[in-house]
Amino acid sequence: MKNYNKQDFPVSEIRRFLEPGPVVLVSSAYKGETNIMTMGWHTVMEFSPSLIGCMITSANYSYDLIKDSGECVINIPEVHMATTVVGIGNCSGSDVNKFEKFNLTAEEATMVKAPLIAECYAHFECKIHDAQMLDKYNFFIFEVVKAHVAISPKYPETIHYRGEGHFMVSGNAVSYRDKFLPQNL
Amino acid sequence: MKNYNKQDFPVSEIRRFLEPGPVVLVSSAYKGETNIMTMGWHTVMEFSPSLIGCMITSANYSYDLIKDSGECVINIPEVHMATTVVGIGNCSGSDVNKFEKFNLTAEEATMVKAPLIAECYAHFECKIHDAQMLDKYNFFIFEVVKAHVAISPKYPETIHYRGEGHFMVSGNAVSYRDKFLPQNL
Repeated sequence: MKNYNKQDFPVSEIRRFLEPGPVVLVSSAYKGETNIMTMGWHTVMEFSPSLIGCMITSANYSYDLIKDSGECVINIPEVHMATTVVGIGNCSGSDVNKFEKFNLTAEEATMVKAPLIAECYAHFECKIHDAQMLDKYNFFIFEVVKAHVAISPKYPETIHYRGEGHFMVSGNAVSYRDKFLPQNL
Repeated sequence: MKNYNKQDFPVSEIRRFLEPGPVVLVSSAYKGETNIMTMGWHTVMEFSPSLIGCMITSANYSYDLIKDSGECVINIPEVHMATTVVGIGNCSGSDVNKFEKFNLTAEEATMVKAPLIAECYAHFECKIHDAQMLDKYNFFIFEVVKAHVAISPKYPETIHYRGEGHFMVSGNAVSYRDKFLPQNL
């Protein structure tokens, strides 16, 4: 297990980690049940409140846990966890306890009952902000109410899914800061 | 200008290019006006119909062009266009013609009136599928009705925005295909 030192991070700035489009692990808990699912279909929707839109198909065991509890945690795994990420997508929480099966550590969150996955680089504690798109699209709009991010490295080495078993690993950091109008930064 | 050879691509498979989270250029047209905007807040929502959810703030000049025409094109720029991408975000279509200012080539699309940006790696012609989230969130749900993708390279070298002028460039391709259950590919 990578030994991250994490600290609180401003919820209005988490686009730094989610806007680039990484695969994330969503953890949930309801009435003593916990689960983890992989997710690649998400988008930032607002800075403040810090809103994230997420597609979570109702066929997923996590769907009801999230809907009924009104909460989840979005965790960012780095590339060294890739086989675990794939394995989590291969099985259902209706059959197995994924924390046990994949030897992951459930850490207590601050604002929600869903657990943090300690092995991940960052954790965003979420509450459902708007459920109006659930029935038609299985689209949750979450508000991130608390963020925990590793102090180092500055940017995680994330994996980005292309389908068919293929991923892109995050590459070089480049800055075009001097090309932006200040008000657009 | 990079000389891409493009061909039709199945609209149900465009997640290959959008799910990894690149910055895209959205082109639009309405009553003789055209415009281009940069966009980083988008997510795949369904394979078939091929749905993409996009945050386009109503303050953008493109917002009304897209809403009123019911159409747009999502174009994928590669990293060699990064300064153009930033420049497009720095100015408003209310003041300038961005195709002229940035010396970009507007090519005719097949299914929509919005133009393709020829200098980009891929183009996804879109029609508004659902506008119910517009008033509250400025969130468009588009259906991709036609896709054009460069034959080579297999994967574009995309840029992914982190905010504050900083980007991540897409990195190595890795496959974990042998780790997936066949039904999950």
